[in-house]
Amino acid sequence: MSAPAQATPLRLGIAGLGTVGIGVVKIVQRHADLLAARSGRPVVITAVCARDRTKNRDADLSGYAWETDAVALAGRDDVDVFVELMGGHEGAARHATEAALRAGKNVVTANKALLAHHGQELAEMAEAAGAVIRFEAAVAGGIPVIKALTEGLAGNQIRRVMGVMNGTCNYILTRMETAGLPYDTVFEEARQLGYLEADPNLDVGGIDAGHKLAILAAIAFGTRVSFEAVKLEGIGRISIDDIRRAGDMGYKIKLLGVAQMTGRGLEQRMTPCLVPASSPLGQLHGGTNMVVIEGDSVGQIVLRGAGAGEGPTASAVMGDVMDLARGLKLPTFGMPAAQLAAPTPAVTSAPASYYLRLHLLDKPGALAKVATVLGEAGVSISRMRQYGHDDSAAPVLIVTHKTTPEAISLAIAGFPATGVVEGEPVALRIEEL
Amino acid sequence: MSAPAQATPLRLGIAGLGTVGIGVVKIVQRHADLLAARSGRPVVITAVCARDRTKNRDADLSGYAWETDAVALAGRDDVDVFVELMGGHEGAARHATEAALRAGKNVVTANKALLAHHGQELAEMAEAAGAVIRFEAAVAGGIPVIKALTEGLAGNQIRRVMGVMNGTCNYILTRMETAGLPYDTVFEEARQLGYLEADPNLDVGGIDAGHKLAILAAIAFGTRVSFEAVKLEGIGRISIDDIRRAGDMGYKIKLLGVAQMTGRGLEQRMTPCLVPASSPLGQLHGGTNMVVIEGDSVGQIVLRGAGAGEGPTASAVMGDVMDLARGLKLPTFGMPAAQLAAPTPAVTSAPASYYLRLHLLDKPGALAKVATVLGEAGVSISRMRQYGHDDSAAPVLIVTHKTTPEAISLAIAGFPATGVVEGEPVALRIEEL
Repeated sequence: MSAPAQATPLRLGIAGLGTVGIGVVKIVQRHADLLAARSGRPVVITAVCARDRTKNRDADLSGYAWETDAVALAGRDDVDVFVELMGGHEGAARHATEAALRAGKNVVTANKALLAHHGQELAEMAEAAGAVIRFEAAVAGGIPVIKALTEGLAGNQIRRVMGVMNGTCNYILTRMETAGLPYDTVFEEARQLGYLEADPNLDVGGIDAGHKLAILAAIAFGTRVSFEAVKLEGIGRISIDDIRRAGDMGYKIKLLGVAQMTGRGLEQRMTPCLVPASSPLGQLHGGTNMVVIEGDSVGQIVLRGAGAGEGPTASAVMGDVMDLARGLKLPTFGMPAAQLAAPTPAVTSAPASYYLRLHLLDKPGALAKVATVLGEAGVSISRMRQYGHDDSAAPVLIVTHKTTPEAISLAIAGFPATGVVEGEPVALRIEEL
Repeated sequence: MSAPAQATPLRLGIAGLGTVGIGVVKIVQRHADLLAARSGRPVVITAVCARDRTKNRDADLSGYAWETDAVALAGRDDVDVFVELMGGHEGAARHATEAALRAGKNVVTANKALLAHHGQELAEMAEAAGAVIRFEAAVAGGIPVIKALTEGLAGNQIRRVMGVMNGTCNYILTRMETAGLPYDTVFEEARQLGYLEADPNLDVGGIDAGHKLAILAAIAFGTRVSFEAVKLEGIGRISIDDIRRAGDMGYKIKLLGVAQMTGRGLEQRMTPCLVPASSPLGQLHGGTNMVVIEGDSVGQIVLRGAGAGEGPTASAVMGDVMDLARGLKLPTFGMPAAQLAAPTPAVTSAPASYYLRLHLLDKPGALAKVATVLGEAGVSISRMRQYGHDDSAAPVLIVTHKTTPEAISLAIAGFPATGVVEGEPVALRIEEL
């Protein structure tokens, strides 16, 4: 079980020695024989890069050259693959990645922000230099979803890609439900547990998950990455009430990414949605990620696994490294960058059922007034539930038949004039599976 | 979105024009542009092969050369990839596959029996000729599990692979549960619906699923395929009672494949097991397949999708074809055939909890006698439930703590002497997830 003695080693330079970087170092050290047997050649680390050399890092780095500048690491003659695990879509990560590609070196990265913001340029740069850039670890952690979509399902026209791809948001929503705690409390818990990014809006604002969705959409539909066209909405306005009420109606609330090519263009959303509680997405608890891919031949494929953490993310990085060691190379987004179409963003979302929660004042004919507004907006009611109430306003839940987001907005705009709707109604899309 | 005019087409010869073969023809015809854009070259069919040329096949085959002999198809100069969709592990499928490999042609096959019985020889033959043999469609239909295990998770030492990989068995068990029908009735229904193989034992005896498990085990553990070492047990002895009682205790019954490398050797089983009702495997209903892969870095990955049918299986075949079109080639089982170790089969299964169902005669001290036998065999009881009864014997359900299969057998052997256990006790392994 070892590589032929004459086989040329694949030499990695690892930029960034945080959790994931150290995870990669550990795999390369622990599984040297296994990696060599599987790829037919030794996979070795020659150099690493991080700012603080004195930090205790739980791995023996003494055999590797040390750079403090990632661009210098990327340019080293003894590095074949530049492994970028620094993060951030500008600054050192971007400069060093570009330097590596310009030098014709292959790049493996876990950096979703970099790909979401500069994917097209980087893909063009890689092709011009005869290099490739790989990023399995950038989307859904350890789940090999980039490979499934680009390669395994390459015979399919992709219809829709969906995913719960931010473990922190799913943790928060699950915890709110199971512990009955309000958003702010659980948010604070998550912060103290170290689950949140330094800028928490990357998580709870849906930005991080939006980056991932934009990358998947590019591969799925053969289009240029267009993160700026992702409709983003975070989980900050989800109340414990909505989680409970949605549960009463047979749904769970998830921060769900959806990308689909419609007659009106490419639709990309990362928004809180209701999904059937009995569906695979509805049964996803805590920090686990799930991606659902729908293809014209394959039907629906569901992939589930850890979306973050040292081991899972390092596993994804190593999957890419092993492909390179084995000589498997593809264009960045599955086809040559010049052939990726500039997508027309869909101006609106496909029709769907909606969940509406409103508080109705205890006045005669209140429900009839609301129903009239809905009807006039073209929204028809599928199911309705009114709760008992201690004060003057009663919660009313409505699940609509399929309708457009415009019709829902029209209805909501009409509620104040009825004089019976108290406060702001909540409207959430129900995503069918 | 088209391939460069000068690109060399990849020419397929398709042997077998049943459901899957026609599915492949349809994809190649429908998605010519998409396939060319993704692979950088046209993917075309030049010749096909089936016995009966006059049969109506729901696809226009007029542009393809026709062979009645698969070996002749495999030898054609205008065929680059021999696509074997005939089935059967001997006869034409085997001969033609060998002929193709000997001629240095790459092979894509959906034939799990062929790989399970002759995988090692075929792998060696392919390597000797500089060809590859691909078989994504042989395991779990449309789910790209071979790719995930061989490539995406190549940085992991695999700990365990599990799967529900025979949709017909899962359909039968689900239908027994939901309709409350006995095995024989549902079996007959399945036969009439055309869900069963000509030899139904391939399905309900676990053989088909066992073939798939043996293939996954070879890749997961770097060993030679050893189907003969798979412990096989079908679903024929599962009663509606057990399905209901297992449900009462929080479990579902699945025909579950498990492969793991233990200190005692390679364990491969395809047997009815209990799994937690709330686990992804427990929530799998009907004909859908699921594979669970556990790796030392990635943790647990779950893959779910259609395990059979024209579209899903053709999707898997085309994933392999597209890899070949793109020049992605790997050894058959992920490493050179000569390096695959001959596995030592584990002589016994790893310890587990067990579900026991027995009928106790209504005699004083009956339960004490059973508990004594269990205790003497070294089996300790975790949970027990006794049901009311109309006749002289009452059903008793026991969930044990972790124990060995030998201890369970010892206990069962001791029951008759108690004089209080009526009929044959049922013992089923509980697989932890």
